[in-house]
Amino acid sequence: MKSESLAPFPATHLGNELRALSAAIESPHARPVRTASTAHEIEDLLEASNGPGTMDFESYMERRLLPLTNFEFNLNDARYIGHMTGPMPHYMPSIAANNIAVNANVVKVETSNSFTRLERHVAAQLHSYFFQAPIPKQAVYDPSKTYGIFTVGGTAANETAIWLAKNTLLDDARSDVKCSLDGLSAALQSRGYKGARIITSSLGHYSMSKIADIIGIGERGLIQVSVDASGQMSLPGLEAAISECRRQQHAVLAVVALAGATETGSIDDLKSIGTLCAREGIHFHVDAAFGGALRFSANHGQLLDGIENAATITLCAHKALRCPLGLSAVIIRDPAQAATIEKSSRYIIRSGSADLGRRSAEGSRPANVVYLDARLQIDGPKKIGEEIDYSIALTKNLAQTIVTRPEFQLIGTPTMQVLNYVYLPSHCRHTGLTSENSAEISAFTRKIQESLMRSFVSRTTLSHVADFSVDVFRVVLLNPETGPAALDEMLDDQVNLGAILEASNHAN
Amino acid sequence: MKSESLAPFPATHLGNELRALSAAIESPHARPVRTASTAHEIEDLLEASNGPGTMDFESYMERRLLPLTNFEFNLNDARYIGHMTGPMPHYMPSIAANNIAVNANVVKVETSNSFTRLERHVAAQLHSYFFQAPIPKQAVYDPSKTYGIFTVGGTAANETAIWLAKNTLLDDARSDVKCSLDGLSAALQSRGYKGARIITSSLGHYSMSKIADIIGIGERGLIQVSVDASGQMSLPGLEAAISECRRQQHAVLAVVALAGATETGSIDDLKSIGTLCAREGIHFHVDAAFGGALRFSANHGQLLDGIENAATITLCAHKALRCPLGLSAVIIRDPAQAATIEKSSRYIIRSGSADLGRRSAEGSRPANVVYLDARLQIDGPKKIGEEIDYSIALTKNLAQTIVTRPEFQLIGTPTMQVLNYVYLPSHCRHTGLTSENSAEISAFTRKIQESLMRSFVSRTTLSHVADFSVDVFRVVLLNPETGPAALDEMLDDQVNLGAILEASNHAN
Repeated sequence: MKSESLAPFPATHLGNELRALSAAIESPHARPVRTASTAHEIEDLLEASNGPGTMDFESYMERRLLPLTNFEFNLNDARYIGHMTGPMPHYMPSIAANNIAVNANVVKVETSNSFTRLERHVAAQLHSYFFQAPIPKQAVYDPSKTYGIFTVGGTAANETAIWLAKNTLLDDARSDVKCSLDGLSAALQSRGYKGARIITSSLGHYSMSKIADIIGIGERGLIQVSVDASGQMSLPGLEAAISECRRQQHAVLAVVALAGATETGSIDDLKSIGTLCAREGIHFHVDAAFGGALRFSANHGQLLDGIENAATITLCAHKALRCPLGLSAVIIRDPAQAATIEKSSRYIIRSGSADLGRRSAEGSRPANVVYLDARLQIDGPKKIGEEIDYSIALTKNLAQTIVTRPEFQLIGTPTMQVLNYVYLPSHCRHTGLTSENSAEISAFTRKIQESLMRSFVSRTTLSHVADFSVDVFRVVLLNPETGPAALDEMLDDQVNLGAILEASNHAN
Repeated sequence: MKSESLAPFPATHLGNELRALSAAIESPHARPVRTASTAHEIEDLLEASNGPGTMDFESYMERRLLPLTNFEFNLNDARYIGHMTGPMPHYMPSIAANNIAVNANVVKVETSNSFTRLERHVAAQLHSYFFQAPIPKQAVYDPSKTYGIFTVGGTAANETAIWLAKNTLLDDARSDVKCSLDGLSAALQSRGYKGARIITSSLGHYSMSKIADIIGIGERGLIQVSVDASGQMSLPGLEAAISECRRQQHAVLAVVALAGATETGSIDDLKSIGTLCAREGIHFHVDAAFGGALRFSANHGQLLDGIENAATITLCAHKALRCPLGLSAVIIRDPAQAATIEKSSRYIIRSGSADLGRRSAEGSRPANVVYLDARLQIDGPKKIGEEIDYSIALTKNLAQTIVTRPEFQLIGTPTMQVLNYVYLPSHCRHTGLTSENSAEISAFTRKIQESLMRSFVSRTTLSHVADFSVDVFRVVLLNPETGPAALDEMLDDQVNLGAILEASNHAN
């Protein structure tokens, strides 16, 4: 074979491609924040540009990839304030190009000599940030120690934490029957349990339902404790749930507290929950997928007080830390604990080796950790913390603005960079949101959210802020380029859309 | 904030960075296939270049990323023939740069308008390749249909397949007790089962042990049927295993056949296993992580005959299809079946929506599917198939060469691009490998594999080729630039290393 067209990296080729591409992506503000395109337009493009497999790279870019890209949301736009993904720091595409050219597989040292070690290095750094104890160099690279396990996303990180918790509790010395070997049912029975439960709050991430199903306790094995009006897990509710598990002889695999609920950004009382878990001997997991980034903030780091008592912490570097997607981790307080999920094989992942795949729910995977390392080395913890402080200040500023504008009602009080509010149709402005007008206000939320084109906010349905459910706008502020002007423009657009909708309702 | 340093993509910046980077990575052959560096050298570099977070991009590249890269294996070298990752097609780094700049999250249409649709489009193409039935356009994008679920790797794809199989069997109408809601134990009991099992062969991937542990049947719930000398799962062994499960009232969640065993490349008798599974009403999963690529081959596609009867198929695009790491899929014959693992939430992944996260073990994740789309559009199925045909021909050629050289013994007969052999020390050349000399030959394998510097092969331990275990070399041919000369050079190097070791053993 060895034909030119199949050869990797013809020397003169790559430079030209990257130069062509850099021209295409170096004007990131050219795209709108969102397009009005329909699913059909995208599907038609996909079908029309679908060829027999003989395009050259330039045609692929021109006819398929860049047109598809033009349909995507523009995260670089200051008015993209909708979800937990932010604009990329300027150096990320270049690092991605290097990563993909090297294509190191961090499952084992025999396919990644250095990035496997980088992963241990960065995991130990994260461990130090959260547990505030420096780790000596020889311990960082010690194969018997696991400070963190990187995963593609928060769901897999939460799953890994629950797996760890399950095996720690149910492979223990109380019985020779081991969960890892003999299965959940036998391990529970041999220890006198009649079932197993996971406890989280009603604002817990939907990944917990997936995990409850996958690990075999079923969705009904997930107990969702109610939250108070601030979105925090009820402590009496948690105590009652634990008592009920004890009474029913259900093992509690883990209590999952939230540090930055996806819908509201609320942070559970980590100190109190940690104390309760310690007293009860329950694995304390903190889903800090979004909020863990607060650890870098000088002004707001104390919001995470108590996280240092967690057994495991989920952090998504692709959320508030603004790394590319595909980079989460579960950080593990006890570096020996991951031995309970260890598996090995003969051809790779050899027992006793430094192979990362020994202790991971995933196998082969890319060295995405480089993105986080670059962020920590180039921007650094201080600047990352300043970004977060800026976004939180901007969020509080937006909350103030909303409070002063009669067309809106703030829902809850923002803890971090997430904020909820509703538009009030004119005739609701005297009473504000009530059980009587909640359906109408919810309909306005949905219509305005879908029609808003110059900005992008998301929406959700909240049921803990009153004794009824209501659809609310959900703003997530991550972009350091977003300022008060962009937010004012968004509010003005929403007021205009609301007025048009009101007029249209009136006419009908 | 809006400070210049935090702004994403300063227009003049990115072009310069990509230009700098392209200069750094456009000479991919400059690095050796592997380095003699020790773990300590890498760790020292990591510690020495670890700063307070104030590096600029150029310094980061110069002081940290490129030195780390220089320690990595060079997959572009024709003599890297060790593992199941190949050199990247020339356009991949450019596509990666675009992907990371866009940072689309394919978990839902509200964060990825077009790449979520691209994922459906490519999943339907893969479905057509494997199940050989064209899918009408309106069905491709129908949210109620799921032709495939993309995952970071083969482990997650296998896990998703087992999850599907579990819920299909144990959420069925035989009982109101549902596995997804009430848990594995209750669902089994209500259907008259006393336990659950997964059946695979003794060459099954180690991910199956992880999955058995995670889903709660325990590693002992994984039955590993013996293989014959060719590496194929024993059919009488499989029948006996199923009978034993029936006798013990154990539910069989799935039979997992291999299409390209990781250690040997052997392919199970998919036709017969599929017939057996159909007769017994058992979910038939094919782990074709590596071997699924044969579907593109005109000459060897028939090796996969019977795969079209699988309920689910795991395929890793980052293996024989030479896409970047992080891109696997489980392809699902019945597009309605994934409803059994569906979860939704209020803020995203809305019920009935086209959101991909509704039916996936993963949540937020990158649009890695673009890499496979590019491969299919630019190189195309025909050229991909020719690559595979070339590599298989080269493998068979290498087998011939090994047979004719007295210093080596071929172990097994290669089915596809994986080949096993051993070095025979001089005094073993008359008898070949025997139970008496297997420990010595294994020691030679280990030492030669670790010492070989101009090429990189891997090794494994096989126990099915004789009535004893032996460590063997494992060659995986994926690089279209690899030719007979590179392989001859590798064999010569191994002979030289073997002679040095023999002399050294003699001297001791």
